[in-house]
Formats: sequence, structure tokens, C-alpha cells
Amino acid sequence: MRKYPLLTIADSPSAIILANGDYPVHPLPLALLAKTDYVVCCDGATDEFVSKGRIPIAIVGDGDSLSKLNKKQFANILHSIPDQETNDLTKAFNYCIQQDKKDLLILGATGKREDHTLGNISLLIEYMEQANVEMVTDYGVFTPISADCEFESYPGQQISIFNLSCATISQEQLLFPLPSLNNWWQGTLNESLSDHFIIRTSGKAIVFRAY
Amino acid sequence: MRKYPLLTIADSPSAIILANGDYPVHPLPLALLAKTDYVVCCDGATDEFVSKGRIPIAIVGDGDSLSKLNKKQFANILHSIPDQETNDLTKAFNYCIQQDKKDLLILGATGKREDHTLGNISLLIEYMEQANVEMVTDYGVFTPISADCEFESYPGQQISIFNLSCATISQEQLLFPLPSLNNWWQGTLNESLSDHFIIRTSGKAIVFRAY
Repeated sequence: MRKYPLLTIADSPSAIILANGDYPVHPLPLALLAKTDYVVCCDGATDEFVSKGRIPIAIVGDGDSLSKLNKKQFANILHSIPDQETNDLTKAFNYCIQQDKKDLLILGATGKREDHTLGNISLLIEYMEQANVEMVTDYGVFTPISADCEFESYPGQQISIFNLSCATISQEQLLFPLPSLNNWWQGTLNESLSDHFIIRTSGKAIVFRAY
Repeated sequence: MRKYPLLTIADSPSAIILANGDYPVHPLPLALLAKTDYVVCCDGATDEFVSKGRIPIAIVGDGDSLSKLNKKQFANILHSIPDQETNDLTKAFNYCIQQDKKDLLILGATGKREDHTLGNISLLIEYMEQANVEMVTDYGVFTPISADCEFESYPGQQISIFNLSCATISQEQLLFPLPSLNNWWQGTLNESLSDHFIIRTSGKAIVFRAY
């Protein structure tokens, strides 16, 4: 059974994708960002990243969401992809896969428009087919799973489970049982009872562990 | 077919529920809040609402998330409900239903912990069984539906559709067709083509219209 350590699978990710939601403020994503050289920015995240003295490895998106100055200054690393079928996060993810970066953390993908937040979180389900990937926010970590998994935890840690398929799902070492989960809220407000918990599923789900 | 107008500051809900996510900053939710007397606060939203010179009709929740001063000062309107099966938003919703307030707007229900945001949005599906309810955020309006509906709109308005049941769903006057929607992101990034659009479904869905 795959085991996930407490914070993220990738304390040293091969790449970070910085999306154009709210820029991180929590110490954990900021520390990950500070120690990772390989950062790919969705174009809307570029200006703030650069304003903090950093330079991304690549800028991916439609090229409309960064300043004229940065668009010119970083023309050599700007990968402008007009495809309307995918959002900037997926374009950045595909870029990382092409570069053989497959231990990925996604930061800055929540906040601002809520429909984008929902879309970005659910995209983890697609991305896990091609990479080890988690999303680190200012409040916790989202992990997509498609098989039984064990998560390192601590008693009292707030846990939410989003069941994105119709498959049955069950848990060990959480406070509440997992019901049929035919609405998102039913998986929220759970709590770890121990230094680990287990999610069993034959379908696809996203596990959120709050800090 | 039910028709939903564009929400404006002229609208008069019978009650507003102010939840304990991010306090609204957009002019529309702020204007609605300013002109509505019947405001029920989830307890975590009370301190900020009171700091702006307002007094809620009722404060609903477990009573742990407001200051000692306000807890004492507003003891007469504090409805402390310890039930672990429902969150504070649902407790406040149930309070409004008991008071026969059934034209409801929910504000302040997104931002902060993303799993709470997801849970709160999906609760609209439950609430629509008992009330006319929409969620107003700083970025747009979420509307739960369970039948064919027409939405007032404008060309270019950004639209997302979240299909929460396995029912088929289709649209008229949107830029992109609605696919099977077996993942949340597939309903995002759509766009209105006209001054209205239609969603047809026999199941349950949530429509987001960005401002």
C-alpha cells in the first residue's frame, strides 16, 4: 500500500508549478518555493514571482496575463499555448511532463475565482495518471488517489475526502465513517484519530489534510 | 421554465446568511449586506460583522468562534448548536427555514480552507430542496438547479457548470458543449453567447456566473 508522509510526497519536488490563484502566504508552500529551483509559472503568476526576485524556468499560458515588461524580458522562456481546451495549469503540467519532471507540487492554485479553484483541485485526478502530484495550499495538502493508501497524520488533524467516482470508499483511523459521498460536503469535517489513517478505494478520490 | 435574473443590488432577499469564510470585499455582496436587515451570522463571522457597526438578527454555530465580549454581549441572540453532523452554515440555514425565511442569499462562504469552500458550495444542492437560495461571492454567483432553467446573462460572461449527479446535462447559448462532466473541471471555462443561456438537466447541478 502506498504511504504518504505528513506534509508532502515531495519535500524535494522535481518541479513546482506556480498557478495564478492567490500567491502562497503560509510558511510551508513558501519554504518549498524558496528551496526549489525548477519553478514553472502559469503566466498570471509570473509578475509576483519575479517581483520577489525569482526567475522561473518557464512561463506557460496564453501570454496575456503578465506585464508587458516581463513578457519582453522573459520572451525566451515564455511558452505561449493558445489551446482553449485546457487551462493554464494543465498547460504548465504538460510542459513539466514533457521535461520529464514527474514529482510535482502545485502551488497557488486556489483562491480568487471559486470555479477555477474547483476545476484546479479536480484536475489532480487527471494529473495523477502521469505524475506524482500534490497540491499545497495555505491551508493544507490535496492528494489524488486511485487505490488503497496510508497517510501519515496526527490525532486531531482535520481531514476531508472527496470521492470523484462512484466507487465505494472506506477508512480506518478517522473519526467518522465515509458515507456514500454522493455530495462533496459529506466527506468534509472528518478528523484523524492517530499518527496515520488509511483510505481504501477502487475508484478515484482526493484527500485533503489540513495543517 | 424557471428564469434567474442577473443578481443586482436592487434584489431583496428575505435573509442573508453570513458564513465564516472570507468577509466579502466585492461591491455587490457588500451592497446586498448593507441594505438587508435580516442577517444571520455563522458564529465565526460575527466579530467582523459587528466591528463594522452591524448587529445580526441571530448568531448560529457552536459558539466557539466569536470573541468573549461578543459572546457575552449577544448572548440573547446566540443559538449554540453542538451537533457534529452539520456545519455552521447548515445550522444557520436551518435557523432561517425555522423562521420561515426562504429567499436566501449566502455570503462569505468561500475563501480560507478550500475543503470548507467545496463543502459549502455543494450544500446548495441540499438547501434548494427547502428554499430559494444562491451563494454570492467576490467573484460571482452560484445557483443550484434541478430542472431546466434559463439564466439572464451577457455576451462573454464567464460561466461554469458543476454536474453533481450522473444525469445528462445540456446547454443553449454557451460557447462550449457540456460533455459528460465526470470531473468538475470539465464544466469550467465556458462563456455566454447572449443575453441569456439555458441549462437543461433532469439531475442536480450548480451554475456559476462570474461577474
